[in-house]
Amino acid sequence: IVAYNQYQSKAEMKEIMQLKNYMANPITPVEQLEQNKDDMKTQMELLIMRIQAEFCRALEKEEDKEAKFTVDRWTRKEGGGGITCVLQDGRVFEKAGVNISVVSGKLPPAAIQQMRSRGKNLQNAELPFFAAGVSAVIHPRNPMVPTIHFNYRYFEVQDKDGVQWWFGGGTDLTPYYLNEDDALHFHLTLKHACDDHDSSYYARFKKWCDDYFYIPHRGERRGVGGIFFDDLDTPNQQAAFAFVTSCAEAVIPSYVPLVKKHKDDAYGYHERQWQLLRRGRYVEFNLIYDRGTKFGLHTPEARYESILMSLPLNAKWEYMHQVQPNSEEEKLLKILKEPKDWLQIEDKKRSNA
Amino acid sequence: IVAYNQYQSKAEMKEIMQLKNYMANPITPVEQLEQNKDDMKTQMELLIMRIQAEFCRALEKEEDKEAKFTVDRWTRKEGGGGITCVLQDGRVFEKAGVNISVVSGKLPPAAIQQMRSRGKNLQNAELPFFAAGVSAVIHPRNPMVPTIHFNYRYFEVQDKDGVQWWFGGGTDLTPYYLNEDDALHFHLTLKHACDDHDSSYYARFKKWCDDYFYIPHRGERRGVGGIFFDDLDTPNQQAAFAFVTSCAEAVIPSYVPLVKKHKDDAYGYHERQWQLLRRGRYVEFNLIYDRGTKFGLHTPEARYESILMSLPLNAKWEYMHQVQPNSEEEKLLKILKEPKDWLQIEDKKRSNA
Repeated sequence: IVAYNQYQSKAEMKEIMQLKNYMANPITPVEQLEQNKDDMKTQMELLIMRIQAEFCRALEKEEDKEAKFTVDRWTRKEGGGGITCVLQDGRVFEKAGVNISVVSGKLPPAAIQQMRSRGKNLQNAELPFFAAGVSAVIHPRNPMVPTIHFNYRYFEVQDKDGVQWWFGGGTDLTPYYLNEDDALHFHLTLKHACDDHDSSYYARFKKWCDDYFYIPHRGERRGVGGIFFDDLDTPNQQAAFAFVTSCAEAVIPSYVPLVKKHKDDAYGYHERQWQLLRRGRYVEFNLIYDRGTKFGLHTPEARYESILMSLPLNAKWEYMHQVQPNSEEEKLLKILKEPKDWLQIEDKKRSNA
Repeated sequence: IVAYNQYQSKAEMKEIMQLKNYMANPITPVEQLEQNKDDMKTQMELLIMRIQAEFCRALEKEEDKEAKFTVDRWTRKEGGGGITCVLQDGRVFEKAGVNISVVSGKLPPAAIQQMRSRGKNLQNAELPFFAAGVSAVIHPRNPMVPTIHFNYRYFEVQDKDGVQWWFGGGTDLTPYYLNEDDALHFHLTLKHACDDHDSSYYARFKKWCDDYFYIPHRGERRGVGGIFFDDLDTPNQQAAFAFVTSCAEAVIPSYVPLVKKHKDDAYGYHERQWQLLRRGRYVEFNLIYDRGTKFGLHTPEARYESILMSLPLNAKWEYMHQVQPNSEEEKLLKILKEPKDWLQIEDKKRSNA
């Protein structure tokens, strides 16, 4: 696993982490942020601004010099707005989207239903809300580099009993070809981020992720998982925020080393076709099942271009596609049908050594 | 419009219409069909078998000789089955799927909700049902040839008050480049099929189609429409069946002339890219909004390969794609945002002549 640590320990990493130049001006006016600097709404907005900038810069370092993120700062008539950064048709990244949004207003029942996994105490009526989140999907060109998705969000909803708040989020990996070392590195990085806060988190949120990114009609998961959680309002607001911060900061060390490692791997027509078919499955999950997409599309005056930036540049659907027995494609499918407990395997390896 | 009639009046057409060789054996055993030959379930099964065979043969006539439909006859553990015919990666048709299904069993509430546009008198519990339908989506290779979709279906659901039955269906056209003569021919053919049964049908079902194939988040329709109806149980069962028969028989004369006319049109990279982007919109509609797809995916042990055969072989999503002002692409978008009353325009042309 030594090879993966190159990024965490180097000056390069520090430099990225210390950047204060966001992709655009914050959505909330700076004076307002300064006046309310202890408010969780402010803390979350500054966190997602920083995470967006760090991640975009880290990806640009892997790209050809001329390939840069385009930055669209948009506002929403009803309140708030967002910053959508997209790098499309690069040499390394076929489509990379990193979006933040800070929105408030009133939510219709259809959107409220998609807001949390359990709908406790939310009446079936329009309610004032605040939501701030960062969300990214990176579709690389090379089929040996996996796709990553992450999303970290903070919600406040006001009902008759006062303000309810909670955090949600997750990071998950979708390889086209299974590399067990990559999956192990990815899960281990996430586990470290979890373990600093609660020793039960990784196991619970790993299972939640396997359950969430399930495509029922195909009986398979979208990828090799990661972590996923929702409705997090314990042990207290600052501790939950510290956990979310750790998770969001783990994205770069979990993923960028995999890009570095595989971005120049050899591949051909066959591997590209398989990647396109798997991207079709990605579209199926996002458009049919993903609560984030549904929440977005049901929010009045949603910016659909930002919601749908998660869709790949190219995707393919073949009727009755069959993988060859004992092929690398079949190896992936087996894992998607029966998720592995990656780190238990790692423990066993160690105890055998 | 004379050019379009070539197909209807020729021996070629008669030959196709008189074919009795279905794509596979009927789903219901032949003796059972013979014993219940006056039952609407039998009549509908024979109609969809015939429509499927006629349409597949008509499309094969437009293809290279070696490109033929593959035929998958499948059965469903809970009752019934289907015949899925797909022609993939042909010279003329990139992906053409023509499916029939004849299924029965018990329906879960989630599927019942997607069964009809108004949910009258159906309790929120598992109910015995019968459904027989034909459904097709044809994605041609050449961007100058439009995509067609049609679906004609018959339902029976048994609730505490007895058996409820109804028909539903429709035919609609999705061009990549707008050809007004094509749209006019298509709508006129459908209008003739409607007018023989009820002079109010075409106008009502044309509007229903424009409303149904609407992508709210983009504020545009999927294509130039056609007809769409559901919950049809008037004036009586035989009359409704006769109407559905006329509609299904209108598919070939409405569409195949357009394939003949445009399949060798010149096009280049630019037109292909636009076609792929529009196919992305097609995927969005089918996976997010289409009730037929939802009904299928919510039916226990559904054959998802048959449901998802409607998805194109290739599709594309570009962030913030913009069409050029005054381009052919913009011309299409305008029509998708504001549907035209094609035949009123035709009437005006005539009265001016």
